[in-house]
This record gives sequence, C-alpha cells and structure tokens, in this order.
Amino acid sequence: MINKKMQGLGENSSVIRELFEYGKKRKAEIGADKVFDFSIGNPSVPCPDCVTESIKRIVSEKDATMLHGYTSAQGDIGVRTAIADYMNGKYGIGCEFSDIYMTVGAAASLTITLSAVAQKGEEVIVFAPFFPEYKVFVENSGADVKILTVDTKDFQVNIEEFENAITEKTAAVLVNSPNNPTGAILTEETLTKMADVLRKKQQELGKEIYLISDEPYRELVYGKECPLPINYYENTIVCYSYSKSLSLPGERIGYILVSPKMKDKKAVYAAVCGAGRSLGFVCAPSLWQFVIGENQGVTSDTSVYAENRKLLLDALTSFGFEAVNPDGAFYLFLKSPSGDATEFSERAKKQELLIVPSDSFGMGGYVRISYCVSRDQIVASIPAFEKLAKDYNLKD
Amino acid sequence: MINKKMQGLGENSSVIRELFEYGKKRKAEIGADKVFDFSIGNPSVPCPDCVTESIKRIVSEKDATMLHGYTSAQGDIGVRTAIADYMNGKYGIGCEFSDIYMTVGAAASLTITLSAVAQKGEEVIVFAPFFPEYKVFVENSGADVKILTVDTKDFQVNIEEFENAITEKTAAVLVNSPNNPTGAILTEETLTKMADVLRKKQQELGKEIYLISDEPYRELVYGKECPLPINYYENTIVCYSYSKSLSLPGERIGYILVSPKMKDKKAVYAAVCGAGRSLGFVCAPSLWQFVIGENQGVTSDTSVYAENRKLLLDALTSFGFEAVNPDGAFYLFLKSPSGDATEFSERAKKQELLIVPSDSFGMGGYVRISYCVSRDQIVASIPAFEKLAKDYNLKD
Repeated sequence: MINKKMQGLGENSSVIRELFEYGKKRKAEIGADKVFDFSIGNPSVPCPDCVTESIKRIVSEKDATMLHGYTSAQGDIGVRTAIADYMNGKYGIGCEFSDIYMTVGAAASLTITLSAVAQKGEEVIVFAPFFPEYKVFVENSGADVKILTVDTKDFQVNIEEFENAITEKTAAVLVNSPNNPTGAILTEETLTKMADVLRKKQQELGKEIYLISDEPYRELVYGKECPLPINYYENTIVCYSYSKSLSLPGERIGYILVSPKMKDKKAVYAAVCGAGRSLGFVCAPSLWQFVIGENQGVTSDTSVYAENRKLLLDALTSFGFEAVNPDGAFYLFLKSPSGDATEFSERAKKQELLIVPSDSFGMGGYVRISYCVSRDQIVASIPAFEKLAKDYNLKD
Repeated sequence: MINKKMQGLGENSSVIRELFEYGKKRKAEIGADKVFDFSIGNPSVPCPDCVTESIKRIVSEKDATMLHGYTSAQGDIGVRTAIADYMNGKYGIGCEFSDIYMTVGAAASLTITLSAVAQKGEEVIVFAPFFPEYKVFVENSGADVKILTVDTKDFQVNIEEFENAITEKTAAVLVNSPNNPTGAILTEETLTKMADVLRKKQQELGKEIYLISDEPYRELVYGKECPLPINYYENTIVCYSYSKSLSLPGERIGYILVSPKMKDKKAVYAAVCGAGRSLGFVCAPSLWQFVIGENQGVTSDTSVYAENRKLLLDALTSFGFEAVNPDGAFYLFLKSPSGDATEFSERAKKQELLIVPSDSFGMGGYVRISYCVSRDQIVASIPAFEKLAKDYNLKD
C-alpha cells in the first residue's frame, strides 16, 4: 500500500522550496535580474580550485577499479585518518579514524545518527527556530520532536526550560551552531551550562542522553570562534557536511564523529553502522571521500559572505528593520515589522524580494534571508528593501 | 537509547563481508596470490575510459557552483531525460523524465521504494536465494519479508506457490533478474505468468500489488537477452544502479523508474520523493548524475566476465561439481557435494578458496562464487578446485 506519510512528504515540499520554485517562475516572467531570490542556502561561492584539481589528479592517477570500488561502509581509512588528524590539530578532540563514519552529506549524517540513538516512544529535543527538515529526520527514527524556543534576546538556550524539558523519554538533544536560520552561535557559557544539565539529568534518570551537533556551518563565522559542543559534553555525536564549507551541496559528502570520550562509544558507533546499513547507505561516494581527504582545513572564499552580511545588515538596520546580528552561517533573521512572518514575506514579494517566513522553522514573526548570493544581487536588492521599509513606515 | 536492532546490524556484518575480511587477513599472512578470494561482487573491470573523460571534461567546463550545487531532489532534468530516452529506445518503456528519480545507488533505490509502498503489518515477497541485504531493507520499511523458494531445476518462480502466497498483507514482490547469487534470468514465460497472477490477485483482493525489480545486472548477460519485468506488469518499479554496468560501486549512483503505465503513478512517485526525503537522501551526487547522463548505453568490458564464466564453469563441471549455468550477473552458484553449504565453504578454505555459503541467501546447500575477479585468479585457482573435488571423491 502506498505509504500516505511518505506521499504527503513528497507532495508537500517545504516552504523554502516553494518560494524557490516561485522565484524560478517569476524570473522567467520578468527577468532574472529583477527578482531578488534569498530563499535557499545554495552557496554562491564556487568550491576552491584545489578541490577541482584534486578531482582531476585523483581520476588521472588512481587505479579506476580501486578509486570507484566499494570502500568499507565506514569509509576509507586514509580519509578518516586525515579527518581525525585535522580535528585533533584544530580542535583538540583526541579522536581516531575509528570514531568517524563517512556519510552522504548532512541529512544522511542526521538520519543515521537519529536512527542509531532514538526510537519510537522517545523524544528528541530541538530548539526553535530550527531547520524544518529536522522534524522529518527525527520522525524517520520513530521518535517525536520536542520543541523548545530559544531566548530571542541573544538566541541562546533557556537553561531552566531546558532542564525541565528533559525526561525519561529524552533520547537526544539536537543543536545547530552556527544556526540556520538565525546565524547565532551557542556560546561557551551556554554549552557549559547545557553539559552540566545533561550530566545531572543522566545521573538522575539513570540513562545516557546524547547531544547531536549538526555543524555544517562550523567554518562560516564572522570574527567569533565557534565553540564545539563535543569539547563540552562527552556524549556528543557530531554531524558534519562539506556542503557549505567547500560549496559542494549537490555532491553529498560528510561524516559522523562519535566522541572518543563517550562511555558507550563502541555500541553507539556500531548502531551508526547498522543504521547506515538499514537506511540504504552502502558507503559515501568514493571519489568524494578521496577528494575531501586531501582538502582538510580548506574552505571556499567565505570573505564574500562576510561582505554580503555587512552590506545587508548595515542597509537593513539603517532602514529601521530589526535583525539578529549573525555570528555565523549565511542567513539573516529579520523581525517582521507587523509581527506576522507570512504577511512580511508576502509584502516583500511585491518588491520582488523572496524571503522565507519563519513559521516553518518553528517560530513566528521573522523571515530568513539567505545571503549566500552574488554581491550584485545584494546591491541591487537594497532599494527594494528600502521601499519595503517605507511601506511599513519604519522611519516615519 | 541506543537502538539495539541497529547496533546488532552494525556488529554482525554479513557472511560475505566476514569472508572478505578473513581473505584480507589471510592474504597478509601467506601472500595475495596464494588466496583465491571469490567472496564479493566488486567489479574487477575498470569503468570505461569515456566515463573518466566525462569526469575530467565536466569538471573543466561546467561552472563549479552549478555543477556541485543541489539538483532537484528528483535529479537533474537533462540527466533524467537522457535516461528516459535510452530506456525508451532500447526497451520501449514509453517513460518520461518525470517517471525517474535519481538515487545514491541500488541500496538507496530499494530502501526508498520499499518505504514508499510497504509498511508495518504488510509483507514483501522475496524469492530465495536472494541478496541477504533484502531482509534488512524490507525491515527498514516496517514490513516483513515472506520468503518463497525458486525451483532449483531452472531457478524460475514456482507459480502455484507464488499465487498461494499472495494475501491481503502483500504490499510488494521483489525480483532480481539476472539474479544474485545464481545468475539466473527470469524468462518471458515466468514474467508473463507472474503478471497474470498479480493482476488476478489485485482484482480478487481489491488492492494494488507492486512488483519491485532490482536490476543492477541487467546489462551483464551471456548470450541471452534479459526480459524486463516492467514490460510485463504495469505496477512495476525499477530499481537500477550503475555499480556493476559501469564498475562504479563506490560512487553510489542509480535511479528508480516508476512504470508510466501504473494507475497510481503520481501517488507512488510522490511517495518515492517523500521516502527519499525522510531517509535523508537530498539528491544523488550531482557530478555523478551528469557523468552517467552522458554515458547511457555504455558498459564496462563485460567480455572479461564472459571469459571468466566459461573458464570456471568448464573446469568445475569437468571436476564433477554441479553448477547452475548462469545466464547473467557475475556469480556462479555451485551445489555443495555434501549438501551442506557451510561445510563446503569451510573445506574450500583449506584450499585457500573463499566462496560464500548460500545459507544467508535464504537457501542451504550451495555456495556463491563471484567471478568478477582477474582472469589470472581464475586460472590460478583451478588446481585448488580440482583438489577440492578430489577431496570429495567427486570423480571416483
């Protein structure tokens, strides 16, 4: 029988995707340069040249049957060793290759991890605003999402509320820093307090609670350093992807890192392997494994995003809009002057500005602006934002 | 909580994988040329040069942000059109690009399709001997496997038994022709009879029953043509992968094709999209989509497998072994002289022959020999097979 839930997921694409499709249609109608599409998080900066060179060299030099053959399900050992070395050198994790499991990108990292440590009857805590697909991924494991809302003053976790939300049903807590859609970074203070609460609750409840850290924007930070949750809490599982840092979102390459300090590390790692097998991920694309193995610590030119961010933030605040000052990622989270996210997004459409209402991120009253676009688009869009501000009488 | 089922799947690797790992260890001990490893289906023939050339050209010519950016979840339209054109020209399917959904290889094609059309409380019929991971993939959808055994005379489906096995619980039927592990091809006659039974049962039970056709070995045939199930039964979903035909098993690229003649085509296709989303497949690796789009109808040099097949089959039958005469794929299914599969595999190990006992394929009494190895290995292994035959006194 057709699975109705799956059919529904296939028929109802996300609000982000809908706006993106609207943009494509609108561009065909009035010209691509007349539509200011800030809907999706597709990097506008190309991958570094060294990545392209790696592909060409590897394809020329490696034996084709070895290069394109199955790697082990966990990933090539040389590649995993390169990642472990990099993570140890840069962040002092103290991990080994055997703590790493290569995946087909961030979504796969998350569905595999969630299936490994959560199941029917349990809950996974997520913090709104959050990437809407989190709900889909958590539900795939059989567990339910339990949504807490961050403090909109500083977009940090409300620790008291967090402590009260953890029950015997809590399997895991999912964090995303820098955050999509706000750009906010969880501070050292927040992470320390969260870890204290988690340890206390583990003791009280007599069970392990896993912290799943979704980190695709780890390298996209502006001025601040991004503290890594794995360095604060031993029961942490990192979900990483090269989609944003190397501008390779279509290629689907990332990894899962199980904290070397975790008590049940071996069992969790085995469950990760089992979940990958069960969901149908045989191994991560082998060519891409070898390419990223050679390019640890490399990123696309993120100065473009930094410049876009400054241009847009300066203009929008000068027009009277209220924005979260984003520390990372490539999103601006803007308050709706009317308090209604959808109304704001719809009114912006009249100025050909495509910005995503925040409701599907689990929080009303804001829009998300993806500024991973060309500088030209930013510059050209500024008069439209100014008109929008006037339309709301923001400066009157 | 750690998912115990996933942990078990991670800890207990398949018998095939275990034998492969044993082989690696044994080769280190006594030398790689002394161990005759026939355990896994990793193609020994490199991908065609035109595939390597495609990679180099695409990487040099295409804009990097477009090339490595997200494609639509269903896959690039140009690539899907190329596949549809090829399938229509070669097999007369009459499909369009919108019937095709690109995937991260065969396993993904299967888990997505199964999640789309089967669920808890339902059954999926599989025919033993079958690829052991089928059980894992079916169970991921929530459904149970119902195992029927093929007739060992000709390795075709026993039609009467098939008809009796279909109940209101039957969600789908999974076939694999050419078959892993036997190499057998389902004949026109078998497919016609199966389709008749399925139509009759649909009528009787008032429900749709889907035929899932796993076809990674479609192009690996020796003398015979392989009739495609989709041309016999309208409720067919094809699961394809380029792993074997283009020798790209590590790269994870394939597709799902929903029959254009299916009544509920749109709903099934939507459920496929939803399942892909839910399981964490965002899109198939974009570079690989473009590469296979340019290489429709191309295969690796399969004459190598044809030669291996003949060499091995002639030698083994001359020693008195009984083998299924394989029409396709690159496996030989050999009867255990003692009737015990594991005993045969263990005794073969003493001659350094690594051959997989058939029990995990859902049928006892045979072993699977993967002859996708070098010709040199085949030639060098023949004296060992001869000793093994003598050990069983086969010719005395």
